[in-house]
Amino acid sequence: MDDHHVEWITFLTDYGLENKFTGVCRGVVARIAPHAKVLDVTHLVPRGDIRHGAVVLRQAVRYLPASAVHLAIVDPGVGTKRRAICVVAGCSVLVGPDNGLLVWAADELGGAEAAYEITNLVDYALTPMSTSFHGRDLFSPVAAHIAAGVELPDLGPAVDVDSLVRLPDPLLAVEGDSITTEVLIVDRFGNIQTSIDENALGALGVGRGAVLEVSGGGSQLVAPLTDTFGDVPEGALLAHLDSAGLLAIAVNLGSAAEDLGVGAGARLTIRQV
Amino acid sequence: MDDHHVEWITFLTDYGLENKFTGVCRGVVARIAPHAKVLDVTHLVPRGDIRHGAVVLRQAVRYLPASAVHLAIVDPGVGTKRRAICVVAGCSVLVGPDNGLLVWAADELGGAEAAYEITNLVDYALTPMSTSFHGRDLFSPVAAHIAAGVELPDLGPAVDVDSLVRLPDPLLAVEGDSITTEVLIVDRFGNIQTSIDENALGALGVGRGAVLEVSGGGSQLVAPLTDTFGDVPEGALLAHLDSAGLLAIAVNLGSAAEDLGVGAGARLTIRQV
Amino acid sequence: MDDHHVEWITFLTDYGLENKFTGVCRGVVARIAPHAKVLDVTHLVPRGDIRHGAVVLRQAVRYLPASAVHLAIVDPGVGTKRRAICVVAGCSVLVGPDNGLLVWAADELGGAEAAYEITNLVDYALTPMSTSFHGRDLFSPVAAHIAAGVELPDLGPAVDVDSLVRLPDPLLAVEGDSITTEVLIVDRFGNIQTSIDENALGALGVGRGAVLEVSGGGSQLVAPLTDTFGDVPEGALLAHLDSAGLLAIAVNLGSAAEDLGVGAGARLTIRQV
Repeated sequence: MDDHHVEWITFLTDYGLENKFTGVCRGVVARIAPHAKVLDVTHLVPRGDIRHGAVVLRQAVRYLPASAVHLAIVDPGVGTKRRAICVVAGCSVLVGPDNGLLVWAADELGGAEAAYEITNLVDYALTPMSTSFHGRDLFSPVAAHIAAGVELPDLGPAVDVDSLVRLPDPLLAVEGDSITTEVLIVDRFGNIQTSIDENALGALGVGRGAVLEVSGGGSQLVAPLTDTFGDVPEGALLAHLDSAGLLAIAVNLGSAAEDLGVGAGARLTIRQV
Repeated sequence: MDDHHVEWITFLTDYGLENKFTGVCRGVVARIAPHAKVLDVTHLVPRGDIRHGAVVLRQAVRYLPASAVHLAIVDPGVGTKRRAICVVAGCSVLVGPDNGLLVWAADELGGAEAAYEITNLVDYALTPMSTSFHGRDLFSPVAAHIAAGVELPDLGPAVDVDSLVRLPDPLLAVEGDSITTEVLIVDRFGNIQTSIDENALGALGVGRGAVLEVSGGGSQLVAPLTDTFGDVPEGALLAHLDSAGLLAIAVNLGSAAEDLGVGAGARLTIRQV
Repeated sequence: MDDHHVEWITFLTDYGLENKFTGVCRGVVARIAPHAKVLDVTHLVPRGDIRHGAVVLRQAVRYLPASAVHLAIVDPGVGTKRRAICVVAGCSVLVGPDNGLLVWAADELGGAEAAYEITNLVDYALTPMSTSFHGRDLFSPVAAHIAAGVELPDLGPAVDVDSLVRLPDPLLAVEGDSITTEVLIVDRFGNIQTSIDENALGALGVGRGAVLEVSGGGSQLVAPLTDTFGDVPEGALLAHLDSAGLLAIAVNLGSAAEDLGVGAGARLTIRQV
């Protein structure tokens, strides 16, 4: 295989699985880059939730193939003036809309080294291009062409990496003996992922065995910091460092999001009691 | 690779993902044609909804690999006398039940050129063949054998392509200043796809910026013909040409199917106001 | 390709599809064994339901590639002392937690021939290993290393196959003219799979056309033994041998689980009337 070829295209969207959208994108890729292997990250990002998609991609990317095209589409601005971009980071190229979806993942890969606006639609987009399905008509063919060895400057003009849209950093404020954070993601089991990592916990002097007070959504509950769900009784709240290394609040066989009455983006304050 | 080999098998079913059905079919394919790459179109066609499956396959097929075996199974008549068929169209072969699921996609590929009834179960089906899971026991092994180079006449007798079951054409009637159409598909967001394409709209003299009156399900609502959802306020109805080139009725951040009170197959009348 | 390489890794979990969990596992596999093809069986095993996962894997495995690594993760005990194991059976290796998930599938492949506890975390696990996501940090990398040719004894000490955790056999008791069985699985359509196979039915002298009385969940209903759903009117109960060769109770276009008021694990008594 040509040295310029990339074997892996990872694929994250909010398209869902009920329809043909992801299948059609795979087909477009297969027509242009039949050698490429498509690795699905997830297609169930909540519809239009750029922040959710950005969090998932950032946390996934270090486990994905090191040399890959990362195709990510959560694009509520499709059909508007938002730019279509590709971003070089590490040995990979990220492809998607310039709305903040890609930059955190690029950070995780060592930082964006270069970026290009995709404007060469004549050579690399499907025509006629629909107004509502750039995943099929723009992003998938471009990802496939990159995997097939196209030189990135052929796609369009270089853009300053500092001009890329960047989402606000997750809230993380240590004040006295408490940390204010936000709910990054609520999973389907009602587990809450915060933006508090081990360092932030350490700054507060909190270690295993501590009991945390979690305030948010009008509720105030206590949760022991444990290693596993089984360390607390069924229905009890717990806090643990999850597999992304972030403090997560959960209920053993229940829903912490329901018990606290919070959703993604909600503010939580946590302190040791 | 042998010239007779086909690299891609696309795969569409109503099996859902909760169970092992699609996985087992992939396993059967892998045992017979380990070289074949399976490309999932969708497995969430509503159970037994042949028309939905046929619409999805027709709209997807032009984006799928040009030389492929298209394995499609929406088969409420499994275990009855309905024929199992393969249909040659373009550079592809479609495999599935003879219930109308495949013919529209064959049309899209240039029309059915030949068809064979799959009767050679001894050589190409798994035995004993179950009465309820021909996806595993008949269609998947046949698709894999075709991908592995079997000559189609070995599968069974040629049948007249005009004898293939064809679903009624979608309703599309221009009368005076109005078009009567049907709801082809309602997606999970409540967006309604009609059978009205750009030509039919043009015949009515309707262009961008027009305001359409949409009648159906006992409701009568107006919708501007726009390019993007963002052109109307949240909660407002809009009409646009969707990514399949068909007129779709939607509500920005809402459900058109709910607002109109219609589902797949419902009749809609549309005229310019 | 090296003779020690395995081409296929099949993949069954209860991780769901809403998140990045399965995608991250695929990424970990791709980094270690880029040649391996991952075949998804299902990822929608009910959360933590080992028995459900074990039934699905047992019924699927004979249709999956004959020489494969079967990676299966339904692991409510993650982070506890349960062993991580790989089990040799037929031409395949099963990888997962030692909680009963794998042994029935090994039986189906001819019986467990050897087993190893995975203790060599230094060489084969990702570090630091999380307490809650051994799918990513332990099982996926081990499955990939096996596919890439690692010798199993390098993973850890051999363990007696008789020491592997085995779930209780499904209930199946013939008494006089009745069989007591259990609900193995309820699918999303409310179809009930029992543990009664054709032999057990034969022992009772029951053949096609028989009418069965099904008692369970406080209900007592009759169901004809038929070949297809279409043999009974809409809404009527029926019994048939399903695609796994087991007696299943269903309602044509309805839910047998609802009509009988039973779920997985419930006891059913069946006799001919």
